[in-house]
Amino acid sequence: MKAIKDSVHGHVRLGDLAAELVDTPAFQRLRHIKQLSTVRLVYPSANHTRFEHSLGVYHLAGRAVDGLGVDGDTAAHVRAAAMLHDVGHGPYGHQTEGIIRRATGRDHDDVGWLLTDADREVCQVLERNGLDPERVAGLIDGAGALGPLVSGELDVDRMDYLVRDAHHTGVPYGTVDTGRLVTELRLVGGDGAGGSADLVSDPGHAVDLVLDEGNVATAESLLVARSLMNAVVYRHHVSRVAGAMLERACERYLDRTDTDAAAFRRMADHDLLVELRERVPALGERIERRDLYKRAVWAGIDEVPAGTVDAGRAEERTAEREIADAAGVDRDAVIVDIPSRPTLKESGSAVVVDGVPQRLEDASELVTGLRAAERRRWTLGVYCPAERVDPVATAAREVLGLRATERPAP
Amino acid sequence: MKAIKDSVHGHVRLGDLAAELVDTPAFQRLRHIKQLSTVRLVYPSANHTRFEHSLGVYHLAGRAVDGLGVDGDTAAHVRAAAMLHDVGHGPYGHQTEGIIRRATGRDHDDVGWLLTDADREVCQVLERNGLDPERVAGLIDGAGALGPLVSGELDVDRMDYLVRDAHHTGVPYGTVDTGRLVTELRLVGGDGAGGSADLVSDPGHAVDLVLDEGNVATAESLLVARSLMNAVVYRHHVSRVAGAMLERACERYLDRTDTDAAAFRRMADHDLLVELRERVPALGERIERRDLYKRAVWAGIDEVPAGTVDAGRAEERTAEREIADAAGVDRDAVIVDIPSRPTLKESGSAVVVDGVPQRLEDASELVTGLRAAERRRWTLGVYCPAERVDPVATAAREVLGLRATERPAP
Amino acid sequence: MKAIKDSVHGHVRLGDLAAELVDTPAFQRLRHIKQLSTVRLVYPSANHTRFEHSLGVYHLAGRAVDGLGVDGDTAAHVRAAAMLHDVGHGPYGHQTEGIIRRATGRDHDDVGWLLTDADREVCQVLERNGLDPERVAGLIDGAGALGPLVSGELDVDRMDYLVRDAHHTGVPYGTVDTGRLVTELRLVGGDGAGGSADLVSDPGHAVDLVLDEGNVATAESLLVARSLMNAVVYRHHVSRVAGAMLERACERYLDRTDTDAAAFRRMADHDLLVELRERVPALGERIERRDLYKRAVWAGIDEVPAGTVDAGRAEERTAEREIADAAGVDRDAVIVDIPSRPTLKESGSAVVVDGVPQRLEDASELVTGLRAAERRRWTLGVYCPAERVDPVATAAREVLGLRATERPAP
Amino acid sequence: MKAIKDSVHGHVRLGDLAAELVDTPAFQRLRHIKQLSTVRLVYPSANHTRFEHSLGVYHLAGRAVDGLGVDGDTAAHVRAAAMLHDVGHGPYGHQTEGIIRRATGRDHDDVGWLLTDADREVCQVLERNGLDPERVAGLIDGAGALGPLVSGELDVDRMDYLVRDAHHTGVPYGTVDTGRLVTELRLVGGDGAGGSADLVSDPGHAVDLVLDEGNVATAESLLVARSLMNAVVYRHHVSRVAGAMLERACERYLDRTDTDAAAFRRMADHDLLVELRERVPALGERIERRDLYKRAVWAGIDEVPAGTVDAGRAEERTAEREIADAAGVDRDAVIVDIPSRPTLKESGSAVVVDGVPQRLEDASELVTGLRAAERRRWTLGVYCPAERVDPVATAAREVLGLRATERPAP
Repeated sequence: MKAIKDSVHGHVRLGDLAAELVDTPAFQRLRHIKQLSTVRLVYPSANHTRFEHSLGVYHLAGRAVDGLGVDGDTAAHVRAAAMLHDVGHGPYGHQTEGIIRRATGRDHDDVGWLLTDADREVCQVLERNGLDPERVAGLIDGAGALGPLVSGELDVDRMDYLVRDAHHTGVPYGTVDTGRLVTELRLVGGDGAGGSADLVSDPGHAVDLVLDEGNVATAESLLVARSLMNAVVYRHHVSRVAGAMLERACERYLDRTDTDAAAFRRMADHDLLVELRERVPALGERIERRDLYKRAVWAGIDEVPAGTVDAGRAEERTAEREIADAAGVDRDAVIVDIPSRPTLKESGSAVVVDGVPQRLEDASELVTGLRAAERRRWTLGVYCPAERVDPVATAAREVLGLRATERPAP
Repeated sequence: MKAIKDSVHGHVRLGDLAAELVDTPAFQRLRHIKQLSTVRLVYPSANHTRFEHSLGVYHLAGRAVDGLGVDGDTAAHVRAAAMLHDVGHGPYGHQTEGIIRRATGRDHDDVGWLLTDADREVCQVLERNGLDPERVAGLIDGAGALGPLVSGELDVDRMDYLVRDAHHTGVPYGTVDTGRLVTELRLVGGDGAGGSADLVSDPGHAVDLVLDEGNVATAESLLVARSLMNAVVYRHHVSRVAGAMLERACERYLDRTDTDAAAFRRMADHDLLVELRERVPALGERIERRDLYKRAVWAGIDEVPAGTVDAGRAEERTAEREIADAAGVDRDAVIVDIPSRPTLKESGSAVVVDGVPQRLEDASELVTGLRAAERRRWTLGVYCPAERVDPVATAAREVLGLRATERPAP
Repeated sequence: MKAIKDSVHGHVRLGDLAAELVDTPAFQRLRHIKQLSTVRLVYPSANHTRFEHSLGVYHLAGRAVDGLGVDGDTAAHVRAAAMLHDVGHGPYGHQTEGIIRRATGRDHDDVGWLLTDADREVCQVLERNGLDPERVAGLIDGAGALGPLVSGELDVDRMDYLVRDAHHTGVPYGTVDTGRLVTELRLVGGDGAGGSADLVSDPGHAVDLVLDEGNVATAESLLVARSLMNAVVYRHHVSRVAGAMLERACERYLDRTDTDAAAFRRMADHDLLVELRERVPALGERIERRDLYKRAVWAGIDEVPAGTVDAGRAEERTAEREIADAAGVDRDAVIVDIPSRPTLKESGSAVVVDGVPQRLEDASELVTGLRAAERRRWTLGVYCPAERVDPVATAAREVLGLRATERPAP
Repeated sequence: MKAIKDSVHGHVRLGDLAAELVDTPAFQRLRHIKQLSTVRLVYPSANHTRFEHSLGVYHLAGRAVDGLGVDGDTAAHVRAAAMLHDVGHGPYGHQTEGIIRRATGRDHDDVGWLLTDADREVCQVLERNGLDPERVAGLIDGAGALGPLVSGELDVDRMDYLVRDAHHTGVPYGTVDTGRLVTELRLVGGDGAGGSADLVSDPGHAVDLVLDEGNVATAESLLVARSLMNAVVYRHHVSRVAGAMLERACERYLDRTDTDAAAFRRMADHDLLVELRERVPALGERIERRDLYKRAVWAGIDEVPAGTVDAGRAEERTAEREIADAAGVDRDAVIVDIPSRPTLKESGSAVVVDGVPQRLEDASELVTGLRAAERRRWTLGVYCPAERVDPVATAAREVLGLRATERPAP
């Protein structure tokens, strides 16, 4: 067993397969993809990468399958999937996910193209160790009885990132009790029957991953941690401004160069940072030096027409052009940033109450409140260089049809 | 400046007055009063005392008055009040508060009797240093512009205990950002006017302690931390059983001995533990050895008639007697434990939103959810020795008029 | 598996036997014995007890035997011994060890009298679970191939207490890497042969517990942690003054009452604190209120005649009487505190270097330096009430034959 | 005051000048220079940068000058120097320091060229705020009464990095008590006179920065922390192999391109990583993918002829060529890595003992032991691709004249 020191879990012990997977280029690349992309422009200690996060997820997955009594072949596939769950990420992780999805039709957890490609080392390592790459890719996509452990409402991915992001930002809100969570997981059949290990091997049986009796507060803590981290870290306005600038810069980079989406997806953070500075200097240099656009508009959901809330990237681009023209500024100088409608995926996690598995939203009155809080925090932003804030604000309110509000300028 | 090492705040630096106060017998006694009384029977690391908690509150109060721009005489009084806020506690803190209140009419934060008694060292130290003991006692009771900093919805007391209780239990839910909280506090006049230091010195002015703009999530985190700590720590059923046994034992102790309430209140934990073992051995020995009663009934608020929910100690005692008689067990062997109706004091904390101070319950949709969760978690318990659980359960459901429920026996 | 939350190790999981042992009165009593006795008068957060420490040692022992590949019956005995290693402690732990040894001839880790007594629950629990109480008691005393894991230079006891004492005092020096230590332990035969599990079961084979290749720095860190914790925590002068007062108070208590040594040893901290206040008020009240004696003399090893350094308790008492008489103060008012000669037990721990197990003192040049530092820090103290410091200092220097020194008065 | 969340110090509060300095390009560049360069190939969580480290040093410097009673203009210069102490670093920090020194004659803390250049924002910000850039540059170089606080044996730089590196690697050995260190610093005159603030303003007075009475163990803890971090982190063999590969790659990069030393020094980590991959792919791609050379030789100081221990870069290069030729491998494929002789700068720190400032090496017997341990850990390495280890090992032992040893191959 090889042990790797980890700032969150102490030591992560790697079996032989895991050690081989770590040495593949696809996994080593994760050293160069930061977990929180532009968040580190707000929280300067948040430089942790998807490499150590993936080791942490592997570690928690191992403890969870042990706790579930699942072992052998099935456990090996789950461990491998946990380890590899992020290899499909492009540079700057979630920040380029929309671009890559629009260009390739694939999300970061759709990694069959990578894992099952016999030319690649990951595929070879898996097969050499007797694992089925298709099955690993399926687990990463949430398929099968244990897929939800890797990608679902109660997955080990979020257990690791909430704690890790809290540790590295210094923000105390992501502190969930991973030690308790991984040991309170249970598998139950559609008929409520228990018996984890057997259920997993019975393909004809609907199986749910649930938290055992007495864990409503545990599940709520996961939801609350996510909601507070959203408010204070993941959706911090400075990180959003930088992220939107990065996304625009990437679009222009793809427009201006002959880089195809596949090559783009394979880049690491440092590649992209250099490329953007060289090829899209108006934005790239600003990102590198944290010389960011300012908020011209920062509008709550009640100010924004419903159609605008649901706008896609194309509508954002059109609005950007119209605002720029109306304000008399350069078209590249306006960014419209409309987040998707707020959701709280964790509210669908299942927890046993009085012997019956329930969705957390049915078991906890907190979910309604958290959803409302997420809705309140939803904010549309329009960003531009500091010296153009006034004309852009006026034009943006007009073009986007924003309702008047008491909310003071940011 | 004398520095004391603290497991939570690193170092707490004491000025001369503080160092003198620490040396008084009334303050040294706090070394012998555990912060969480019977919680340590569930969380064995939770042995911290009101001594170090009081030092922590003093530390945070100092940072808060610095942040508010309050200094001189006023700051000195606030610091002294923070340091002394718990000297009125009886043995086992909150666990004996009801008994002492019924016997003396005083709560633990009504400490004028102690601070203004010229025969006592605390009073002498305060006066020797030019402080007014009456004013310090008033602050501990929440009076005056800065009283809410010592005793209120946003007081430094709860900032310290949430973090300290989390640190010492090992539970990750009490993690509030005290560093942010103490620097985001503001004083505003009833007319919304700012200017902390001036407001404090103007006795004709209504003043509110609020969290500055941009801190709804910060305030929510305080509320959530409290709610999760309630669920997992403060109201853990084992601690409640032990606490109820302790309270009954104290009542019997006062009945059987000629100890008066004043002498009882001056006891420390070790005194009480020894006295109960000697004088009320049936309960005292059990508490010392953690040989606890079991739950015969554990009923949610919807099962309990409204009148019963609001029962006082006298009704509890009557019910205990009736249940014991109906079950044919010894009258001392039944404990009925009816908590007061759930409240969340922190929901009244004020936070500035769009320039206007609002109560958190008006600014956050989370409050409703948390209140509902508190209500759901409210539970009536009936406890007795393990071997009498069945007859006591039957008798108790009958006597208390509990409604049928699906909830399984504990 | 029952899980107990621990402030240091997160969760400690108890098997059935462990859970039964925890419920015995002998183990529950450890809740009432503080780990660091009088140290908490200096570090107020240091209120942790031998109860949670014992759980921590049990936890580390389990990880160590897993790492060594030892299981079954042998592992069960080691785990039980780790859990029970401190049940022989008297009130205030090491502080009363000398008194109990002088009265009973037994050290705290000589617990056969307790574990093998068929009238006691501990013995019954062990036998009911198929364990041999004699063998468990032997392990606690360091006997057998795995005895050194429970009581030796590399035992899990010190791994836990160094980290736990650092966590609860807030002092950062006890931070050893327990995660690494427990996985780098190896068993080697007297002939250098490996093969942990086999060696353990071969009674004819001399076996050593060693740290594997590449761990000289790991072993040094343990030694350094101990040395720094000695300097800053364990031998802090205020704790030594209080400890010496406590020891004198206990001697007088045993002289004045008919309490026998066996009953004394069974007391818990709170019992002793109350008894000393009642029966030896001159010292007991002072200890309870932290109204401590002051240092009249504080002399380094070079100032003290060799014979005095090696004085036993009887000589200390004689010196106290002579000093008191010479200074014209009450005989109870002088305490002479002569620590035993400095040792560093950890310097004998074995570590593999270039394939050969060596004693740390042979593998590390640091040991000589640490020993010299321990020697430099050795200090003889004479304590008395503040107002008698001057005459006592003069008389003590005369009676003890201290050499002149430049060292300023404390 | 602007507050920045920091994973180590909680919050770092920035005054106006500090906030302006943070926004300069020279400071923002530090976001892209990792604190521990290649160490993160061993400790994957160690991705922290010189940006947050510099904020931490600024924070500690502020607490130290407060503690020393130094304020006004002098304190402002010290704070600015602490903030800017690392702006002179090239890409990958210390790893390129030798190259830059050989090319420019400047160390990283010789930053006059940068701070006093009126064309640069840093200089402008300093002058606009009434500070003298020359004086700031001098402090960074250790000049003046307070220079040693920024760059010396007791500087706030090492206080921050030891704790920060421990936090981010997860290794528990760098835990020094910064809270105590910064408050126990004193300034004493050459004549032993105290009075911090006055001394600073008296240019005719020799002044020393010392730790106050009672801090020998505190100073030792700093030394021990450094020594253990050296052994386990800073000089870990994998990091050394990667670092040596990086240094060779940089030399070839400068040879092959027309990049001058000044431009090279201005690069950030990501620039260099991309450049090396493109221009020196044989090494650059390996570094990026952590496909590292292996150790062919790993020789202790007693095996190496004295002349070789003191070899410079030129001799290393010659040896590399000779070994490659003798082994029949490509000249680029052999790296000889001879560290400089071990020193422990911290052993010269001054601490007051019995009223007299002494060098730690005179006050503590530990220093000799730590020096010997450093000497024992000194190791010469020869690295090459895994498949050439055998012939390279043989050739290297011959060429370098290594003595035979029992030490097994790594």
